[in-house]
Amino acid sequence: MNRRLQNLKDGLKRKQIDAAFVTSPDNVFYLTGFQCEPHERLLALIIFQEKEPILVCPKMEAEEAKQAGWNEEIIGYSDADDPWNLIEKRISARLNKIKSIAIEKDHLNIARFEELQRLYPDASFLPAEPFLNELRLIKDSKEIELLQKACELVDFAVEVGVNEIAEGKTEVDLVAAIEYEIKKKGAGMAFSSTVLVGANAASPHGIPGDTKIKQGDFVLFDLGVSYNGYCSDITRTVAFGEVTDEQKKIYETVLKAQETAIQLTKPGIPANELDIAARKIISEAGYGEYFSHRLGHGLGIGVHEYPSVNETNELELEPGMVFTIEPGIYIPGFAGVRIEDDVLVTENGVRVLTTYPKTLQIVE
Amino acid sequence: MNRRLQNLKDGLKRKQIDAAFVTSPDNVFYLTGFQCEPHERLLALIIFQEKEPILVCPKMEAEEAKQAGWNEEIIGYSDADDPWNLIEKRISARLNKIKSIAIEKDHLNIARFEELQRLYPDASFLPAEPFLNELRLIKDSKEIELLQKACELVDFAVEVGVNEIAEGKTEVDLVAAIEYEIKKKGAGMAFSSTVLVGANAASPHGIPGDTKIKQGDFVLFDLGVSYNGYCSDITRTVAFGEVTDEQKKIYETVLKAQETAIQLTKPGIPANELDIAARKIISEAGYGEYFSHRLGHGLGIGVHEYPSVNETNELELEPGMVFTIEPGIYIPGFAGVRIEDDVLVTENGVRVLTTYPKTLQIVE
Repeated sequence: MNRRLQNLKDGLKRKQIDAAFVTSPDNVFYLTGFQCEPHERLLALIIFQEKEPILVCPKMEAEEAKQAGWNEEIIGYSDADDPWNLIEKRISARLNKIKSIAIEKDHLNIARFEELQRLYPDASFLPAEPFLNELRLIKDSKEIELLQKACELVDFAVEVGVNEIAEGKTEVDLVAAIEYEIKKKGAGMAFSSTVLVGANAASPHGIPGDTKIKQGDFVLFDLGVSYNGYCSDITRTVAFGEVTDEQKKIYETVLKAQETAIQLTKPGIPANELDIAARKIISEAGYGEYFSHRLGHGLGIGVHEYPSVNETNELELEPGMVFTIEPGIYIPGFAGVRIEDDVLVTENGVRVLTTYPKTLQIVE
Repeated sequence: MNRRLQNLKDGLKRKQIDAAFVTSPDNVFYLTGFQCEPHERLLALIIFQEKEPILVCPKMEAEEAKQAGWNEEIIGYSDADDPWNLIEKRISARLNKIKSIAIEKDHLNIARFEELQRLYPDASFLPAEPFLNELRLIKDSKEIELLQKACELVDFAVEVGVNEIAEGKTEVDLVAAIEYEIKKKGAGMAFSSTVLVGANAASPHGIPGDTKIKQGDFVLFDLGVSYNGYCSDITRTVAFGEVTDEQKKIYETVLKAQETAIQLTKPGIPANELDIAARKIISEAGYGEYFSHRLGHGLGIGVHEYPSVNETNELELEPGMVFTIEPGIYIPGFAGVRIEDDVLVTENGVRVLTTYPKTLQIVE
């Protein structure tokens, strides 16, 4: 029994919950080491206080689960099977009465919830997130190693992209070059790679297209690499040729906001103080209305995970937390600048895991 | 008001349901033309029998929604807002009593469902899938055009991959080359590209790694391209150098099963007959236990959508349905072969949208 699973079992015992029904691929991976994208099929890990756990997965994934090191029971169901009856049987073999089940309320859908309610009409259903978020919030040394590697790869990805910048190349040209080099290293992208040129970057979630790079453009890279299940997430904005004073002012404002938030990061500080400090700098420079999203988000197996670093989350930072710090200014029709690093809270302060330079880079 | 939205409104009227709360990005895209990946944030389209619809999305996506052609109301909420109170207010401005709400039971999570229940404690919640699946099941001419284009691109993707095959190249080398060429064409992959060599292909959902291609290997490509929101999905298995008689027998068995299922495809045939016919051929050749998944799945905006083509789904085929036909044989430690096409049911039979050749190709 691995330690993460044991921690969850201890949590169930403490709260006197009979079972947890874990369904998000990220949490199943965290607890079992088995990485599975079941698409619309059911994936579930059923955990009890004392009894042996059960993994439920499509039959064709069962072999992978074993190879990933899972040596407890597997219910491998085919597309023609009804997994719910199989689940009920195997649970009954362990416990004859289930009074409470922890479920992932942010992940489990209503159709599956109704199946559970049908099997256990008298059970109470509690959120599993408090347990799971708590477990995943503090990264262990193995996780930090993987995150660091993912960050090294994403630093390299930005380098590839910046080297590729040239008059007339398009956003997708740059994406193609970046993803090619990352694939060649045996890694994958953690999310849809974003390269946006000029005014296109004014949309925080724009999609790369065939806009060509021209002199005086900012080029924004928002890239993530997935390495052995762990994600990095970086944003850099560089200039192609000379940019205007207004563009420079925007860049320097974002950079100051970002560096200020990083400097504040240490154990004991509430997460929202980072957001408020960065937002204050941007507002004072007159761009407040153009910073339209939170400062950052947790990072790990998920590219967006707990905690949210926003204006209202007062969670106190602790060593082992990893999140992004990514203020931005987006002026419709004109330009967008975002600068994003992944940071690890340490015993005494902060370690910045992404290291690509942030001084305004003018690509000639 | 677009026709798709009108069809859904008509459905609500017919079933006397006050509102639909549509949350999956694919269905929101289908109904609005707005493509959005909100990650953990709420995306919702609220539709009424008569009143004007409401789109709920992160504030920073609101501009995109307008650019995509949405000119009805938008609730664009920031990370610090509670979108539910905003939703309640804007719904109240339209209807003062909500008695029934259709929700996507296969998509909506429990946490959000509980918010809806809190706002409308007396409402009944019905599944929206019957409406939405029905609408999306039959592709219109514009959708077929986009699917056809996605299929042309994925034929090209296989060609790129096959041309790249050489002694000593790895699975990820091939993936990198394929994705580079597809990106250069301004399209993206519809799912994680799969290239598997030799015994690695014995896992239907294996992940490409650094295994090198060697003489006598089968190389399996499972690729999808996403073009303007529509997906293709193809699998081809080719041989590198001479393969054994056993490998050839496996290949010919899969091909016969696949072609038999395609030939059966026409309006009026129950979907499961295709699965049963293909499975029979594989079983009779002695490989029944090694065909561990359903024959196919619907294809459109989603890479796996309604209908499922499995042993039990008796849904009668109709013109305009698009799905995959993809039998496979997977022998652990030895080899895996899968052949997959995307097919469109026509008035008189079937049109195969993916056209890369299927005769066993020996790459020298």
